[in-house]
Amino acid sequence: MAEPKTNELMDKIVSLCKRRGFVFQSSEIYGGINGFWDYGPLGAELKRNVKDLWWRWMVRERDDVVGLDATIIMHPQIWRASGHVETFSDPMIDCKTCQGRFRADQTNEISCPQKPSKMVSECHGEKTAPRAFNLMFQTYVGPVQDAASVAYLRPETAQAIFAQFKNVLETSRQRVPFGIAQVGKAFRNEVTPRNFTFRSREFEQMELEFFIRPDEAVEAICGRVAPVAEVFGVPPSGGAAPTAAGALPEPQPNWGWEVWHKYWVEQRIRFYESIGLPRTTLEEYWQKPEELSHYARATVDLLFQFPFGTQELEGIAARSDFDLSQHQRFSGKPMTVFDDELKVAWPKLDPARQTELRDRYAQARLRYLTKTGEPADKAERQAREEAEALTKGYYIPHVIEPSAGVDRLALALISHAYTEDQAPDEKGRLESRVVMKFHPRIAPIKVGVFPLLKNRPELVAKARQVRDLLRPHLNVFYDEAGAIGRRYRRQDEAGTPFGVTIDFDTLGEKGPELQDTVTLRDRDTLKQERVKIGDLLSLLLEKVR
Amino acid sequence: MAEPKTNELMDKIVSLCKRRGFVFQSSEIYGGINGFWDYGPLGAELKRNVKDLWWRWMVRERDDVVGLDATIIMHPQIWRASGHVETFSDPMIDCKTCQGRFRADQTNEISCPQKPSKMVSECHGEKTAPRAFNLMFQTYVGPVQDAASVAYLRPETAQAIFAQFKNVLETSRQRVPFGIAQVGKAFRNEVTPRNFTFRSREFEQMELEFFIRPDEAVEAICGRVAPVAEVFGVPPSGGAAPTAAGALPEPQPNWGWEVWHKYWVEQRIRFYESIGLPRTTLEEYWQKPEELSHYARATVDLLFQFPFGTQELEGIAARSDFDLSQHQRFSGKPMTVFDDELKVAWPKLDPARQTELRDRYAQARLRYLTKTGEPADKAERQAREEAEALTKGYYIPHVIEPSAGVDRLALALISHAYTEDQAPDEKGRLESRVVMKFHPRIAPIKVGVFPLLKNRPELVAKARQVRDLLRPHLNVFYDEAGAIGRRYRRQDEAGTPFGVTIDFDTLGEKGPELQDTVTLRDRDTLKQERVKIGDLLSLLLEKVR
Repeated sequence: MAEPKTNELMDKIVSLCKRRGFVFQSSEIYGGINGFWDYGPLGAELKRNVKDLWWRWMVRERDDVVGLDATIIMHPQIWRASGHVETFSDPMIDCKTCQGRFRADQTNEISCPQKPSKMVSECHGEKTAPRAFNLMFQTYVGPVQDAASVAYLRPETAQAIFAQFKNVLETSRQRVPFGIAQVGKAFRNEVTPRNFTFRSREFEQMELEFFIRPDEAVEAICGRVAPVAEVFGVPPSGGAAPTAAGALPEPQPNWGWEVWHKYWVEQRIRFYESIGLPRTTLEEYWQKPEELSHYARATVDLLFQFPFGTQELEGIAARSDFDLSQHQRFSGKPMTVFDDELKVAWPKLDPARQTELRDRYAQARLRYLTKTGEPADKAERQAREEAEALTKGYYIPHVIEPSAGVDRLALALISHAYTEDQAPDEKGRLESRVVMKFHPRIAPIKVGVFPLLKNRPELVAKARQVRDLLRPHLNVFYDEAGAIGRRYRRQDEAGTPFGVTIDFDTLGEKGPELQDTVTLRDRDTLKQERVKIGDLLSLLLEKVR
Repeated sequence: MAEPKTNELMDKIVSLCKRRGFVFQSSEIYGGINGFWDYGPLGAELKRNVKDLWWRWMVRERDDVVGLDATIIMHPQIWRASGHVETFSDPMIDCKTCQGRFRADQTNEISCPQKPSKMVSECHGEKTAPRAFNLMFQTYVGPVQDAASVAYLRPETAQAIFAQFKNVLETSRQRVPFGIAQVGKAFRNEVTPRNFTFRSREFEQMELEFFIRPDEAVEAICGRVAPVAEVFGVPPSGGAAPTAAGALPEPQPNWGWEVWHKYWVEQRIRFYESIGLPRTTLEEYWQKPEELSHYARATVDLLFQFPFGTQELEGIAARSDFDLSQHQRFSGKPMTVFDDELKVAWPKLDPARQTELRDRYAQARLRYLTKTGEPADKAERQAREEAEALTKGYYIPHVIEPSAGVDRLALALISHAYTEDQAPDEKGRLESRVVMKFHPRIAPIKVGVFPLLKNRPELVAKARQVRDLLRPHLNVFYDEAGAIGRRYRRQDEAGTPFGVTIDFDTLGEKGPELQDTVTLRDRDTLKQERVKIGDLLSLLLEKVR
């Protein structure tokens, strides 16, 4: 079958999402609200599965990560510390002719509302100069609406993790290196939301802040920092680590920020592989030095080839100690940790090594402090003090941040799953079908259970028994009505990987050897095999876990 | 041990929540933000478990409920249709003396900020007359801040379900009666948030809207509506149904709104029982006719005895067809469904019965339409038309709404779990302990895994094997450090129901019969039993599911 063209494919995906209840426009009956999307029954299950697997993979199956569930509205000072109040904006222009507002950097991509044949950059409308438009949604907390009660809807979940870093550290028995993970809604008042759910104004993030020792502390404790090539067999930005999926090296005390960063890039790719996005569908983009945020040491974007272009799924950034430093500065609360291994190791270093590490640490701190606008003498004094504290075992942890978008990932999974092929109908004639080839782990429904005929009570009773057997462990869709081929086809479109049919053989009508067996149909291969009801649950659980 | 006094108990609970990382004040390092609370590692897991179990119970294990995941910001017209723009407000007074703002109905309960020894109602501050303060948080969507771009943070999740009712109905193969469930954040700009997490400004809801036939349709199809006493053996508001937990009657076509309402009250109580809140800790409060909202036919509040008083956990309301009717009126989009069983049944009724049912339905619709402010003649005409449509199989579904608060439930579970008792230390001496007696189903951590000694590599290696065996299926806390008694005590405070200790017997040092067995400790009974590692997983899974 010919590959559909890109826009045609996207149209088909959007249409399927609506038709099958994956995604609806928010508030559709009121004409919708631009940049907001609701997930229908299948979409809600898909999103839950994605978030649950992320949580299991990132939190529950690790000793070194714990969870957090913070509020969307936080103290506004948090967004001053993070820089969002000052700099989280897009350049915007107004068109005095059509009254439209546009992202200044997208005028070549957006059609003029009055002359859709032209782009905004080509039309004759009179435009203002670009100016900054802050993307944070603003509101007021409490009964008085004034400057003191202004608050923002969080534009990212990460900052709550930094703000609660000390509380978590003190209550969770974790020690650096360890991480704090969070899943939740975030909001950005995009000037031009687009590409379906890809760039929306309300979205959900899955973020991990993984706190690590500064390299100087690692060197003091372990003698040296392990090079990336030694740990992974490849240079830092040099393609895939050659280990098999799931078999990453165990974290070691001599890992510095570069190895930890590479580790998380590899971990995240393995996560995507585990839910059905093969490595070949992903691209690693290592930001060039001039593209990096001023505090970032390295950032890798994991890109996915969407029908509308190759776009970011997740960013994995090595953010140095910038974030905790900012919150220390703005809150006046210390963000340093005490590291007894560092304290014990330091006096054993030879003096030249001590001086080298202390100076290097002081230089790094000085670079940060200078950027905050501190006077030079004050910044230098503070950097020296902080380097002195390092020698006693105190430092502000550095952080590696894998930050993923739930909605983008759901869209990537839907795009990747969308397939048109041919399958035989009731009478064995080939007909074209749409099938969503979701990995069983993330499929909204795991198994369809069908009595062959609705009007045979023995079949229905048996099918319900099978449903009740599977349901406590798996998301089951039970369907009695219509021709069996049509019921299969509906589950193909929903992406249900397995179908179980209860027929007359199950009842023993063709002899005792087939009694209490069912037909198990595979969505992708269309193969049907005969399985004992007693074996069904464990067989299915093995495939969906 | 003496029961601690109420406020003392609440203080202890708040202190434990902070100390063990269940709940932190949002933005604490910036002095906090009133009415916002973050969940730390243990709290985040507790909340996840509560929400997951609700979803499993209400959606995945039923054929007749599907999920939805809608946006927090929706079209503002939704809140006009729901009545929130006009009437979702609290009466507020200003004090001109101290500049404070207070709920007019709470001046007897709140201390004067200037003279804390007096209540606001008793102090001498000069106060304004009460006026309405709308509790919805307001923001602007898009680059222009004007009346046309005003939007609200949803004050409840329910309305999205009504707004997407038709989309879900058309894509999910459901037919009335069926339900749509949603879990998500909601926001209310409370004038005086209080009682810890009980009344906060940002909270999470778990809501089901269960759509049913109007009684007239049930009567036309089944001849009569089954009385509550017949189905449950008790009158509508008459205490507990005498069936065993989990053994509610299967829904039947002849159930009208009263039976469905009672069914959901009973279901919800069983849910609370299943996660460790016995029926004796709950109270049913049936609202009196004069307390009901004008559209509600019955509302039951399920109350829990918090340390600060008996307060609402959940409301289960029979809301008639008010909500869908409002959205039909405000959106102009029909919210009627077609019911072929009704269409088939109607012509078979005798004419007197037809007239009676049609008139009764018209009267009910007329009551609704009159309240909307329609002119009498127009309302009467429309009511007649709608009753005529009923005879062809069309109606607007009625709804039963069980609406629960996640944060309230988490607080109830924490309050109920909090226990002080005595347990033996290492040397068998009794010492007092705090133990959180969570039901294993909702406990944040299911099992602690402990090597007896940290400095014996064989113990540590074996303990890690056990951890890795259990972890894919259960939330495990692995802890090597400190005396075993202290490790137990820490897990008691976290509410971990089971502890597994790997000792020298496990290694076979006391003979082959104990090799590969571990000690399984029960948090509540303190009993320790010897269990084979091979039996551990299935034994634990049975207890936590």
